[in-house]
Amino acid sequence: MAKLTDVAKLAGVSPTTVSRVINNYGYLSQKTIDKVHAAMQELNYQPNNLARSLQGKKTQLIGLIFPSLKNPFYAELIEYLEKKLFDREYKVIFCNSENNPEKEKYYLQMLAANQVDGIISSSHNLGIDEYERLNLPIVSFDRLLSPKITTVSSDNLAGGKLSAHALIERGAKNLAIISGASQSGSPSDYRTQGFMEVATTFDLPCKHLEIPSGTIISIKKNKIKKFIEENNFDGIACTDDLTAIYCEEYTNCPIIGYDGTELIQALHPELLTIVQPIEELAQVLVDVIIDKINGKETELEIILPIKLQQNI
Amino acid sequence: MAKLTDVAKLAGVSPTTVSRVINNYGYLSQKTIDKVHAAMQELNYQPNNLARSLQGKKTQLIGLIFPSLKNPFYAELIEYLEKKLFDREYKVIFCNSENNPEKEKYYLQMLAANQVDGIISSSHNLGIDEYERLNLPIVSFDRLLSPKITTVSSDNLAGGKLSAHALIERGAKNLAIISGASQSGSPSDYRTQGFMEVATTFDLPCKHLEIPSGTIISIKKNKIKKFIEENNFDGIACTDDLTAIYCEEYTNCPIIGYDGTELIQALHPELLTIVQPIEELAQVLVDVIIDKINGKETELEIILPIKLQQNI
Repeated sequence: MAKLTDVAKLAGVSPTTVSRVINNYGYLSQKTIDKVHAAMQELNYQPNNLARSLQGKKTQLIGLIFPSLKNPFYAELIEYLEKKLFDREYKVIFCNSENNPEKEKYYLQMLAANQVDGIISSSHNLGIDEYERLNLPIVSFDRLLSPKITTVSSDNLAGGKLSAHALIERGAKNLAIISGASQSGSPSDYRTQGFMEVATTFDLPCKHLEIPSGTIISIKKNKIKKFIEENNFDGIACTDDLTAIYCEEYTNCPIIGYDGTELIQALHPELLTIVQPIEELAQVLVDVIIDKINGKETELEIILPIKLQQNI
Repeated sequence: MAKLTDVAKLAGVSPTTVSRVINNYGYLSQKTIDKVHAAMQELNYQPNNLARSLQGKKTQLIGLIFPSLKNPFYAELIEYLEKKLFDREYKVIFCNSENNPEKEKYYLQMLAANQVDGIISSSHNLGIDEYERLNLPIVSFDRLLSPKITTVSSDNLAGGKLSAHALIERGAKNLAIISGASQSGSPSDYRTQGFMEVATTFDLPCKHLEIPSGTIISIKKNKIKKFIEENNFDGIACTDDLTAIYCEEYTNCPIIGYDGTELIQALHPELLTIVQPIEELAQVLVDVIIDKINGKETELEIILPIKLQQNI
């Protein structure tokens, strides 16, 4: 990671001048300020590293970058992450990326400047570069960020397969799957792929409806309604539980959801679903980020098993 | 707020010695360490104030202390708080108090030591003292913390009244209300009080069931089932939406919930409910905390209006 002296060298000024620019004191010409800023930018230098290295200690802060709390899956995962980090004496800076690359980029810069010890990211609008150049311990949830960054997920491919088997066991012969927008390497894609593979194996027809996340609920519901009314499905899989519950409004055929949060299980105990091990995922994410902070080697890919929740 | 020199004076040592104790360097006798620690504790001195005042700038961090993300109301409120704070260039340290006074206390100390600029708290396990002695800008959500601390809420009393009127308009004559455990000054209490007042005005019988938050779902559902089966209610109000949806399993009579989150409205558009203005609450909480940080006077109690969401 770039040091203050590196910035000074590149800008052709003394370290004291760099410190003055950062702390905004003493007389400085605009030319000097510009030179130092340019060097800081080129080296991706984060000013607060100064304070950090002066203090010579960790901040005990972890940045969590997640797309939305409105999905109960993320809310529950973050609830567990906070608990488990608290037990290890870490606090959480919560960053909602809203699937907005600009906001995510700004947050990454702020997190580095704010001296977090590490980042757990579940939001990958950005290219690999932005994460790799941070030079901070990072663990990625659910998506491969870079060959250098550990990814933790549950077994999305197996989950998709299991949901197809569950519907076929219930007599389904005309299958459908409703997922988020196709995006290479997304969890939703793996679930869809697993589902399709089993449909092909059993030689069963299978239609696929993609609805981008962030679609207005009423529009989403209309798409689902039309998709169901225009076909004669006898088994529908969804890559999340909320979509599965929307489907219940338009058909009585077997439906299977995905995620298995405590909230949806409590509100909809009738829903057949694939359960992700939310608490265990949080535990592994916390273990990995703390291992990385402490300089330990970690596995590059950790995949936890999913299970079927039978409806009652 | 206590300064390092105050600690030195009380402990009868030099400021350098206090600094050494804090930073753990140089030779120090156990007796000196104990004296300094005792003085720090007595003055509620937070070591990182040193670094903070050295830097002479704000941290742009706000601590959020909330009881749980598992309730979609809190998840959506926190989602909006993060967005609105981000727009004002503040970042969020998220603290889940889990209704645990010890955890809340520890978090308060950590937040002060971590140099947050202010705290938005919705969790009040602790006495007024712990909050007042922090000497940090604080705004309280939903409960009166102290006459010195601004409280922001929606109109819980009016919400309770409105839910009674909504059931009576739908022909209800034998009323019930299901709330959390009674606790002086809680939002759930105000809602119940408003409901009861209207029942009394209309001279209608009204039974009240209290179920403490944190009750295991299966036990909670059994209590609700028994309560409904043993009575002949023709109108049931609940002080949150989740409980209202549990009630739907056991009766077809009119039910009204409370909160009106986007998630529950999307999953259960049929649910009659009292809608809290979640985004506006977040906006006011953010405006107030930033005003306080900037040394502006703020109102002591801000109450936003609620509204009825008609079922479809």
